[in-house]
Amino acid sequence: MGGLSDWLARRLRLAISDGRLPVGSRLPATRVLAGELRVSRGVVTEAYQRLIEEGHVAGRGRGGTIVVATPVAVPAASRPSLPANPSPAAGALFAAAPGADVFDALRAAPARIDLSPGLPDLAAFPRAAWLRAERSVLGSLSAADFGYGDPRGTPALRLAVANWLARNRGIRVDPNEVLIVAGTAQALGLLAQVFRHDGIREVAVEDPGSLGVRQHLRNGRMDTPPIPVDSEGVRVDELRTTGAPAVLLTPAHQFPTGVVLGGERRRELMRWAGEGGLIIEDDYDAEHRYDRPPVPALRSMLAERVCYAGSVSKLLAPALRVGWLLSPPKYRDALVTAKRYTDLGNAVLPQLVLAQLMESGEMERQLRFLRRRHRRRRDAMIDAVRTHLPGAVVHGAAAGLHLMITFEAGFADADLAGAALARGVKVQPLSWHSQRPNRPGLVLGYAASTPTDIGEGMAILAEVLRRLS
Amino acid sequence: MGGLSDWLARRLRLAISDGRLPVGSRLPATRVLAGELRVSRGVVTEAYQRLIEEGHVAGRGRGGTIVVATPVAVPAASRPSLPANPSPAAGALFAAAPGADVFDALRAAPARIDLSPGLPDLAAFPRAAWLRAERSVLGSLSAADFGYGDPRGTPALRLAVANWLARNRGIRVDPNEVLIVAGTAQALGLLAQVFRHDGIREVAVEDPGSLGVRQHLRNGRMDTPPIPVDSEGVRVDELRTTGAPAVLLTPAHQFPTGVVLGGERRRELMRWAGEGGLIIEDDYDAEHRYDRPPVPALRSMLAERVCYAGSVSKLLAPALRVGWLLSPPKYRDALVTAKRYTDLGNAVLPQLVLAQLMESGEMERQLRFLRRRHRRRRDAMIDAVRTHLPGAVVHGAAAGLHLMITFEAGFADADLAGAALARGVKVQPLSWHSQRPNRPGLVLGYAASTPTDIGEGMAILAEVLRRLS
Repeated sequence: MGGLSDWLARRLRLAISDGRLPVGSRLPATRVLAGELRVSRGVVTEAYQRLIEEGHVAGRGRGGTIVVATPVAVPAASRPSLPANPSPAAGALFAAAPGADVFDALRAAPARIDLSPGLPDLAAFPRAAWLRAERSVLGSLSAADFGYGDPRGTPALRLAVANWLARNRGIRVDPNEVLIVAGTAQALGLLAQVFRHDGIREVAVEDPGSLGVRQHLRNGRMDTPPIPVDSEGVRVDELRTTGAPAVLLTPAHQFPTGVVLGGERRRELMRWAGEGGLIIEDDYDAEHRYDRPPVPALRSMLAERVCYAGSVSKLLAPALRVGWLLSPPKYRDALVTAKRYTDLGNAVLPQLVLAQLMESGEMERQLRFLRRRHRRRRDAMIDAVRTHLPGAVVHGAAAGLHLMITFEAGFADADLAGAALARGVKVQPLSWHSQRPNRPGLVLGYAASTPTDIGEGMAILAEVLRRLS
Repeated sequence: MGGLSDWLARRLRLAISDGRLPVGSRLPATRVLAGELRVSRGVVTEAYQRLIEEGHVAGRGRGGTIVVATPVAVPAASRPSLPANPSPAAGALFAAAPGADVFDALRAAPARIDLSPGLPDLAAFPRAAWLRAERSVLGSLSAADFGYGDPRGTPALRLAVANWLARNRGIRVDPNEVLIVAGTAQALGLLAQVFRHDGIREVAVEDPGSLGVRQHLRNGRMDTPPIPVDSEGVRVDELRTTGAPAVLLTPAHQFPTGVVLGGERRRELMRWAGEGGLIIEDDYDAEHRYDRPPVPALRSMLAERVCYAGSVSKLLAPALRVGWLLSPPKYRDALVTAKRYTDLGNAVLPQLVLAQLMESGEMERQLRFLRRRHRRRRDAMIDAVRTHLPGAVVHGAAAGLHLMITFEAGFADADLAGAALARGVKVQPLSWHSQRPNRPGLVLGYAASTPTDIGEGMAILAEVLRRLS
């Protein structure tokens, strides 16, 4: 049903943007349109719901569903047709080792189907709820609230985050210990500054593990020795061997393998931390578990040795640039100072809007909605891999916004990603996220794409792969 | 008239917040209320206009003026009554040399009358226009706009800033050369990173000159040799003597003296820059000139040697954390990289809202409104200084959001500021902003306070000063 609804929502958006459905006009009754299109009424209802959430139409009770705003971006423009010949730029992106601007370049590269990992379904952003909360915030702020604020964040958001972490991640924390930051990227930069001042020069990382995280740590002048990840998660024995004083982990859903850190490994890790090891827990998509409740955060068990970073990038949208950082007491003041010198604190209005969405239950509603949708898309991707890429192995738990596939064959996965991009399909090669040699593989995001696009993308990947081998 | 309107707006806000004027109720007709209060009808109209802009009430044409939202902060809470005895915390704030958190501590200190410099009239924030623009932005964004964005800023805001700078500051710049940042504080941090990489280890600063700026440069591991400022602005001959490769200047309205850089000094400075000197132009309140059009930015004359930083902190509100940075071509890529590693770019929604306000003429409207109001408040402060502090010398051009006064007497201005804070009046001592010994003085913000509060504040300062000497 998701695919049909997506298709219908897209058609409606196009009709609104090119004037066939002008602002003020009424959409057909769901029953009528469903009959005309020979789809179930649920498909139409879901498409209308999407447009309502995007703020393009509004329900008026018995008055029907009315067009209230025009999308500026004409869908055609953001979905260029397949290039006749492979684009030379696409090849160049994957030809060299990835530099500091690699993710900007990948994002800017045109592609018809974007299966980059790391994005939630952005079309589901709760525009109407955001606007309602913004109106309420603007109506209740005092003049002084528009001045320079607390570099740690507004009290309202720090409280909302503390409550969110208690409800969703099993973490008990005093709101005064929450530092609001501009996403996990900024949290890593602040931690690197503070660690360096404390004499720490390296932060071990999972391997495979996020290229972006590694880039940020290295920019903060940290070495990043690689620790292998197996089916139970990070190899704590190997971590001990490196002698690194700190490690960055993604225990809830390892990036990119999707492994959940096993119970015995967690205990081993606790022992390592108890002997002086320091953990950065990047809890980037922990709330997105589809088959069972998420495992508790490491932070909930060992507050004194865990720096915990979370954000709304995977819950609402990366464009908001809001996240949070908890740290052991010894680093707290230094982190506030580092944040102050970085930007004097996050912008106030979005913090207050977000606090309202978190405290009103809107965020949990959004998360439940996303979980259902993401799960369907994950299932669609696994089906499509089985159909089109029977030689590929799918890794990871039923969680998150992406999955990893690997191949037994011997080829360069960057070539596969480059050839796929030339055919209009954007994916990331596993080798980007690996420090040591690895089997060829791909990291595939499914959360932001419709099942139809996912299926088509996998079919194109299969075709590209046949030509490559 | 401003003072009465302020008073009336405050009374109305209080009545709304404590339920005497519930949401949905109608305010009295302006003519009626003016008669009851024995004030001119303009006073009432202006007070209502304030509440409309704040979003607390809305005009309904013939339906009258209706209460639509409740202020959460009860004014009484943010205006504690005068403490019976001097508070010990207040004294401590000014007793030691100012540390990294000094501005946070000063902001957090309770005071009935806040004459800190650096804030525009925050009550004038155009809440209704902001909300309208936000609605329009949310209605027109594509889903992809909610993803990770360009670390340089959104194309729409970079274009709007380029147009703003052309209209208001005589600067012609390609939008692609505009870097959107989280305020001038962040601009300084990014510049320090890039300068250091280029072998630069010191940035000379004006003396007196902003303590906050000096703290940010020093945190970026720059030395900050002081260059004296006289009635024509910074002493370029002294700048040459230091041999510093770079200097930070506030040419349009020097902070804190208020001096405008003279013509001959500008030419001298151009020669120094032409011989290899590098300028950071902190154009922090250049748009607020009351007696004539502002002088053009140095950047407009010498793009190759000037890094230019501006922000909306003095135009709209510091809480927005949005600014812009222009730089010579040689530093451009490195600054983008530094911004990317700092936070992956500013949040997208507020950038787009701001772009709309700038392109629609709303920002210029706001600026014209603020100029009129600020000018009245400046005049009120000068009058009050003449009345209550006849021994003080007022410095600076008819511009900006603050003025500086100095005293011929010999006492520590930090003691004066401390004693004033203990009496409920917040000011900054000139010594905070001086590296070399200086006459005692105060830096006084007038833009965010009503003429009544300004007058009362000056009277208390005079009383405190009498006890001190």
